[in-house]
Amino acid sequence: MVNRSVEVCFSPSLIHLFEPAHKIVVVIDVLRATSSICTAFAHGANSIVPVANIEDALPYRDKNYLLAGERNGVKIEDFDMGNSPFSFMGDAVKGRNIAITTTNGTQAIHAAKEAKKIVIGSFLNLDVLADCLMNQDADILCLCSGWKNKFNLEDTLLAGAVVNKLHALNKFNIDCDSALASEHLYLLAKDNLFAFLENSSHRNRLKRLNIEKDIAYCLTPNTCPVIPVLENGVLVKL
Amino acid sequence: MVNRSVEVCFSPSLIHLFEPAHKIVVVIDVLRATSSICTAFAHGANSIVPVANIEDALPYRDKNYLLAGERNGVKIEDFDMGNSPFSFMGDAVKGRNIAITTTNGTQAIHAAKEAKKIVIGSFLNLDVLADCLMNQDADILCLCSGWKNKFNLEDTLLAGAVVNKLHALNKFNIDCDSALASEHLYLLAKDNLFAFLENSSHRNRLKRLNIEKDIAYCLTPNTCPVIPVLENGVLVKL
Repeated sequence: MVNRSVEVCFSPSLIHLFEPAHKIVVVIDVLRATSSICTAFAHGANSIVPVANIEDALPYRDKNYLLAGERNGVKIEDFDMGNSPFSFMGDAVKGRNIAITTTNGTQAIHAAKEAKKIVIGSFLNLDVLADCLMNQDADILCLCSGWKNKFNLEDTLLAGAVVNKLHALNKFNIDCDSALASEHLYLLAKDNLFAFLENSSHRNRLKRLNIEKDIAYCLTPNTCPVIPVLENGVLVKL
Repeated sequence: MVNRSVEVCFSPSLIHLFEPAHKIVVVIDVLRATSSICTAFAHGANSIVPVANIEDALPYRDKNYLLAGERNGVKIEDFDMGNSPFSFMGDAVKGRNIAITTTNGTQAIHAAKEAKKIVIGSFLNLDVLADCLMNQDADILCLCSGWKNKFNLEDTLLAGAVVNKLHALNKFNIDCDSALASEHLYLLAKDNLFAFLENSSHRNRLKRLNIEKDIAYCLTPNTCPVIPVLENGVLVKL
């Protein structure tokens, strides 16, 4: 049997180079969209519609959806919640449908729309995600949302964690330098992700927003063992 | 005095995100274009014209230029030389003008055309390059040529080496995750670059071409203490 491949794409604007149509794309936006999405499903949310623009979110209010979203890290005015995972917990989301739009994460989901399948990755669902990916029959592409199409460290570390778990199986080809680099960086960082990211650009950007607690939460593995998957444009729990 | 910044761009197709017009762009294609260019100037070449296409190179033959170039690692038919640095040595290049076109490196030079200044980087000229960059008055952007717009490890390691040398000065802001990642990877790899790249994708691609000797040469620092700089579309020695 031919080994499957696992690759990493560092920017949504480069995804066309990776021929996503035949691959399972793992969309990653650790700080904070995909962490918040995993949190919502772990807390009983029914569905989440990722929309690219604020205007596209507004009509969902009439359908009794919650509206969630941020731009440049700040909650959109009049929306029910921003992008903090702590807003996606408990009774606030249980049984609810949510429309979400964010600076990077939901843009990445849209960039991946040609994919064979789209799943959502974060540190919060790392182990169940890796287990799920092992048992699929297609090549894997981790898509880092980055920051406005630039590389970022936190998404790369999660991509590296996924690569590392699949690499250990000896059933995957890793002939992709960005996957190798991600794995190297993850192995450097894994014993203290929070300290490793201390000087990263997005961490500094978010420090100004006073969300250290969000960051610590988003870097804690395996607290939300759910796999959000996109079906007909809507994220649901697998 | 405001500190200068040093950033790293992992793909020529992302350079527009980095506002190159006010920056000194260091174009990097370790295997092998920028290594060959440094070699040529260290061996007395007069000038090198980087051209994007094979067709653009051909008219230079009538002007007594040497034609150099490869596609997918293989020398272009009827050209004087391919992309091996060993072709750019000695009497073959001394005093000569050269037109060169390569899969990645010359494309990256063209992608950087809006830059305030373009210089050529490789391990072969690392220390003189870093010294020169320290004494400029503009922000620095290292542009990795990559492989067909994808990230590659060897260019990233050189970018990381440049970042590391500038970082040590305490006069540079490093608020760019790709610069931080490059530096981490360089520090992991620096004691044995050759071994670190053993499994990289481009290394594997080039192994098929039987150019291990080229790779070892391209990873040896400071054998060619020259700084090629682009002036009016032509590379000359600074």
